[in-house]
Amino acid sequence: MAKQPIGIFDSGLGGLTILKALRRQLPHEDFIYFGDTANVPYGSKSKQTVTRFSAAIARFLETQQVKLIVVACNTASALALNELRRQCHTPVLGVIEPGAQAAALATQNNRIAILGTEATVRSKAYAKAVRKRKPTARLLQQACPLFVPLVEENWSRTPAACQIAQIYLAPAKRFRADTVILGCTHYPILKPVLAKLLGKDVHLIDPAQTTARAVETFLGSAKENSGKGKLTIYASDDPARFKRLASRLLGTPVSRVRLKKLNI
Amino acid sequence: MAKQPIGIFDSGLGGLTILKALRRQLPHEDFIYFGDTANVPYGSKSKQTVTRFSAAIARFLETQQVKLIVVACNTASALALNELRRQCHTPVLGVIEPGAQAAALATQNNRIAILGTEATVRSKAYAKAVRKRKPTARLLQQACPLFVPLVEENWSRTPAACQIAQIYLAPAKRFRADTVILGCTHYPILKPVLAKLLGKDVHLIDPAQTTARAVETFLGSAKENSGKGKLTIYASDDPARFKRLASRLLGTPVSRVRLKKLNI
Repeated sequence: MAKQPIGIFDSGLGGLTILKALRRQLPHEDFIYFGDTANVPYGSKSKQTVTRFSAAIARFLETQQVKLIVVACNTASALALNELRRQCHTPVLGVIEPGAQAAALATQNNRIAILGTEATVRSKAYAKAVRKRKPTARLLQQACPLFVPLVEENWSRTPAACQIAQIYLAPAKRFRADTVILGCTHYPILKPVLAKLLGKDVHLIDPAQTTARAVETFLGSAKENSGKGKLTIYASDDPARFKRLASRLLGTPVSRVRLKKLNI
Repeated sequence: MAKQPIGIFDSGLGGLTILKALRRQLPHEDFIYFGDTANVPYGSKSKQTVTRFSAAIARFLETQQVKLIVVACNTASALALNELRRQCHTPVLGVIEPGAQAAALATQNNRIAILGTEATVRSKAYAKAVRKRKPTARLLQQACPLFVPLVEENWSRTPAACQIAQIYLAPAKRFRADTVILGCTHYPILKPVLAKLLGKDVHLIDPAQTTARAVETFLGSAKENSGKGKLTIYASDDPARFKRLASRLLGTPVSRVRLKKLNI
């Protein structure tokens, strides 16, 4: 089992921030990444539809003999994780549990703000996961639908990004949250803007870091005999566009992205 | 044939601005609207993928015995119209030709700016259609990927919308365009902001108006014996959300939206 690759997927590009953290933590593992660019985004869609897309990807990853599936998408983790675990023979890890755990550990004043897509916020998945670890925590949820297109447009350091972030962060500031969960894989790319607006006393939780550690823990001794650090990337639409943007997000050149249409 | 409904589709909600113009122009016609909310947006996707989605919708509309299919989505009109005409038994009308015609008639200084999604701009469909009518026209294309999420977030009158519009319109202003095509069905909702930034001497072309007239011309005398002004709406995801937003965009309460999964 050790030499099998780890499967990882997202609705599109955002999950590459998780892949980057995973490769840093586990440099000898082989990875197969799937970006569902034909159906992106997931964040404004229903549980039923996001589960249908996610299950099709998981089925494909299982045909690639992965030893573990990492759901590197907050929306899919929030809406589809239980159903994926029911359907898959392979273990499935999401990003919500590790993110919630990190937030519960970080807060001092017991006030945590959760930023996410509309669907993630509606699911209350982070809120439930934080409460399991810290029943007394006071929580505020905020959907930030414009953050993803800002990042995809590469506008994360523009005045427009700052103005939009100000609007979305206002409730968290009034709430005096000392810990803010970046509950969508695109949001860490806005970290410089968010950190500046929130101030240095606020912890920004990037689930990528804790997810990478959760994967390492899950693998345990299996990682001793792991692969060669090989990366294979699939996208369900326009591999050329994906390749261009992926190189930027991974911070390393991507030589090839393969096109794979899903059976939905 | 006259009593058959008119089919109309878009990747999501935007096409409702076209439907609104059509119903105003043709109050006795029956309409079946399909919003592909499971696969929205189309504007960042490839020709192949947009054509696959559009063809699946057209097949569904043909099962509903429509007499005409209106592609109320600029991206689908730009990328998939020829293929739809090849596959469908029903006549198919898009929004690009009527929009290009209106722009060619409106310009005085022969300088036309085309605003659209990434995919529409990349296809050059508006540019080709304008040049067919006005070979000497000088054209500038500008992709505006943040406009759709701004409208969907209902932020079209905020300072953030104004700041983003300023960035996207700067090239058109430098180009001294006297005519600007709103080449995406969401953009007319930003008209107040765009008109203010461009000034009163610039013509804003909303293809919805000219498309409605093109449909009327196509129907000719057939409209004399047409339907009862009945409207049936389908969405491929989350009909409750669609209903809420559709009522706002149509400016009239929508009593029911039916869920219809596509066979893709």
